[in-house]
Amino acid sequence: MEPVKIGLLGLGTVGGGTVSVLSRNANEIARRAGRAITISQAAAKEYSKDISGLETVGNITDDAFAVVNDPDVEIIIELIGGYSPALELVMKAIENGKHVVTANKALIATHGNEIFAAAQAKGVTVAFEAAVAGGIPIIKAVREGLAANQIEWAAGIINGTSNFILSEMLLKSRDFDDVLAEAQALGYAEANPEFDIEGVDAAHKLTILSSIAFGIPLQFDKVYREGITNIERQDVAYALELGYKIKHLGITRMTDQGVELRVHPTLIPHRRLIANVDGVMNAILVKGDAVGPTLYYGAGAGSEPTASSVIADVVDVVRALTTDPGNRVPHLAFQPSAMSDIAIKPMEEVETGYYLRVLAVDKPGVLSDITSILGDLNISIEAIIQKEPEGDVADVPVIFLTQMTREKNMNQAISKIEALASVKDKVKRIRVESLA
Amino acid sequence: MEPVKIGLLGLGTVGGGTVSVLSRNANEIARRAGRAITISQAAAKEYSKDISGLETVGNITDDAFAVVNDPDVEIIIELIGGYSPALELVMKAIENGKHVVTANKALIATHGNEIFAAAQAKGVTVAFEAAVAGGIPIIKAVREGLAANQIEWAAGIINGTSNFILSEMLLKSRDFDDVLAEAQALGYAEANPEFDIEGVDAAHKLTILSSIAFGIPLQFDKVYREGITNIERQDVAYALELGYKIKHLGITRMTDQGVELRVHPTLIPHRRLIANVDGVMNAILVKGDAVGPTLYYGAGAGSEPTASSVIADVVDVVRALTTDPGNRVPHLAFQPSAMSDIAIKPMEEVETGYYLRVLAVDKPGVLSDITSILGDLNISIEAIIQKEPEGDVADVPVIFLTQMTREKNMNQAISKIEALASVKDKVKRIRVESLA
Repeated sequence: MEPVKIGLLGLGTVGGGTVSVLSRNANEIARRAGRAITISQAAAKEYSKDISGLETVGNITDDAFAVVNDPDVEIIIELIGGYSPALELVMKAIENGKHVVTANKALIATHGNEIFAAAQAKGVTVAFEAAVAGGIPIIKAVREGLAANQIEWAAGIINGTSNFILSEMLLKSRDFDDVLAEAQALGYAEANPEFDIEGVDAAHKLTILSSIAFGIPLQFDKVYREGITNIERQDVAYALELGYKIKHLGITRMTDQGVELRVHPTLIPHRRLIANVDGVMNAILVKGDAVGPTLYYGAGAGSEPTASSVIADVVDVVRALTTDPGNRVPHLAFQPSAMSDIAIKPMEEVETGYYLRVLAVDKPGVLSDITSILGDLNISIEAIIQKEPEGDVADVPVIFLTQMTREKNMNQAISKIEALASVKDKVKRIRVESLA
Repeated sequence: MEPVKIGLLGLGTVGGGTVSVLSRNANEIARRAGRAITISQAAAKEYSKDISGLETVGNITDDAFAVVNDPDVEIIIELIGGYSPALELVMKAIENGKHVVTANKALIATHGNEIFAAAQAKGVTVAFEAAVAGGIPIIKAVREGLAANQIEWAAGIINGTSNFILSEMLLKSRDFDDVLAEAQALGYAEANPEFDIEGVDAAHKLTILSSIAFGIPLQFDKVYREGITNIERQDVAYALELGYKIKHLGITRMTDQGVELRVHPTLIPHRRLIANVDGVMNAILVKGDAVGPTLYYGAGAGSEPTASSVIADVVDVVRALTTDPGNRVPHLAFQPSAMSDIAIKPMEEVETGYYLRVLAVDKPGVLSDITSILGDLNISIEAIIQKEPEGDVADVPVIFLTQMTREKNMNQAISKIEALASVKDKVKRIRVESLA
């Protein structure tokens, strides 16, 4: 059989890794796919001549549209990233009847609905395993492996940079700024690390995960998002004292009042397997009604791990080339005609546990003022840590761990606590999930 | 579109779970598959009338061959277990041109080669996700999700009963016999627990996992197999003192000298994620050359978790009904014409670390006798624990942790150590893997 001809857009980190893995494992991949897979054209403005396997690429051009318009190319791999010209290239590829494989989480999370509609109309596939959690085959697991289940919720460590920073803060008692600087030096975090540490990247991935879990359209603009920039070393330490670790999680959950879609730092019981996922590694915990909890762990970024998912998608597409489009796995796991219009639940309505750190003047009555505010709002306290004042400092931190509470009530409670004369500073609030 | 008609063989634990999940989640599953899936016929000699959803089954008979011969049935789900009549039924279903889904690990591990050859010739699919690690979609992950990789090795906790016993021995300092009795009372272990605690069940699953990782025929008779019956509480405790946990692992690894295929208790560093998988849960660590280490965790047995995998296979088969057989995912991940004939490596040639517990007379010179035996065979020692004798007991346990050593050399060393006059009893040997 003729080799399948690929057009590759982008020869950066992931593009280079894709060339390398496709050439190094060509035999292994062909033994699985039943056909050789060859990159007949690649497009890049600039690229390293040292990419291993680069000599196997048929032709390299700086005109990405020429690749997308090449009638010999059957599958386009989009690894340029960003919105433009990635979106225009993907739409043109679809228009030309080509299948597309992409690692572009920002593009799928924000333009996926229109992309999939166009692909559906044209009878082609747009595959995006690499867009969520790099090398972990999480899209395939949720979309196909758990197809028998009503997914109840999913919670994931889906940004390696944030997890690296939080792990270092815990394991080595380091400060946020210090670790961030190291992460930038190591190349984990960009010079402008906002996408990572402010949770934008995690929100992109969570948007996609939520859609394939529940069969809802992609709704990136509805994600509640909080990064890790407010987490202090003392919070990491207090959490551990309470039996918890702080992880930056993307959480999505089906409830009767809508789908929860939220990215924020979270206290989770330190005995949970996912609490022990350290460094830049990713992991996603998915709870199905039949299967119970399942967890998927691996490298969430990097050249070859991401290429691993890109190429797995290519093999899937190659196998489906002769399948009638109606029988292919739907883009968002559910048939386009059977999507749900259930709303995203406003953050104010979400119920979760809370960790509160309050800086209070060390005098009688403060604790009772705070606990009666919580009590009046029906917020049950599970644990309190009150530290002795150190030296002649008059203010002491008091830590509260609450039971499940509606966010709306907690907002009220925090306003009232902050209004107390004996309370200094803002109240630090971190959400708590049992993940059981 | 017409519903797909299923013939279900067996209404026991997994059969009942399959009926329940298929009926409870009928809407969710049809939204994904694009077609309703209905059990038009089920066969069982006896069954509980209390299975939830049983009323959705079209007809129940005690004649399994009648179901397999029903021309209306498109897919057979075999959940009878064992070899006969399961094998005859599966072969008959294939002969009749029906696709088959099975959870029968013993059948696939020992008769899979002939079953897949027959299915291949007939152009039908035999799917078996539920045969390895219950609800975890590990077959799909390795066969499709990691298709870009040369798999280097896989190591799994793939028998829940053994893991439950070892976890209890560690976490609660209990004795083997005591925990086994509880496992039997809880229904985790059979009255005859040999398949679980002697590693037969794990060997079945490892056989399948190895074949799809490396593209080799199923070779159950080549698995080196050791159960957990010789693990004592003191070994669990000494291992922890050295920074390790003892887990019963199935391990398969590609080496230049052949494929390793072995099931045995193993010391693994306690910081590894998989070392923290406790109770009846399963987890498989898979190392690919591109993706690096990945881990898959979930329920390895039970009614609905196993049903989850069975039904996922059914959905896959439904989607592939119109695919030409040559473009389906191959049964053992690699095209039948591209299987490897690399041999299974004899256990004597395997290299691994070792934990040795030697009961020695507490007198000068013993330690030096043992270390020179090890030294003469080029076995490097990484750690030694020598305990003070307790009270007036003359014999003390000495624990050795060695670096990577060939099994053959270790066998010689152990014979020589056991021949020393100052050494009592057999040497306890447990293998050590870094899983890095």
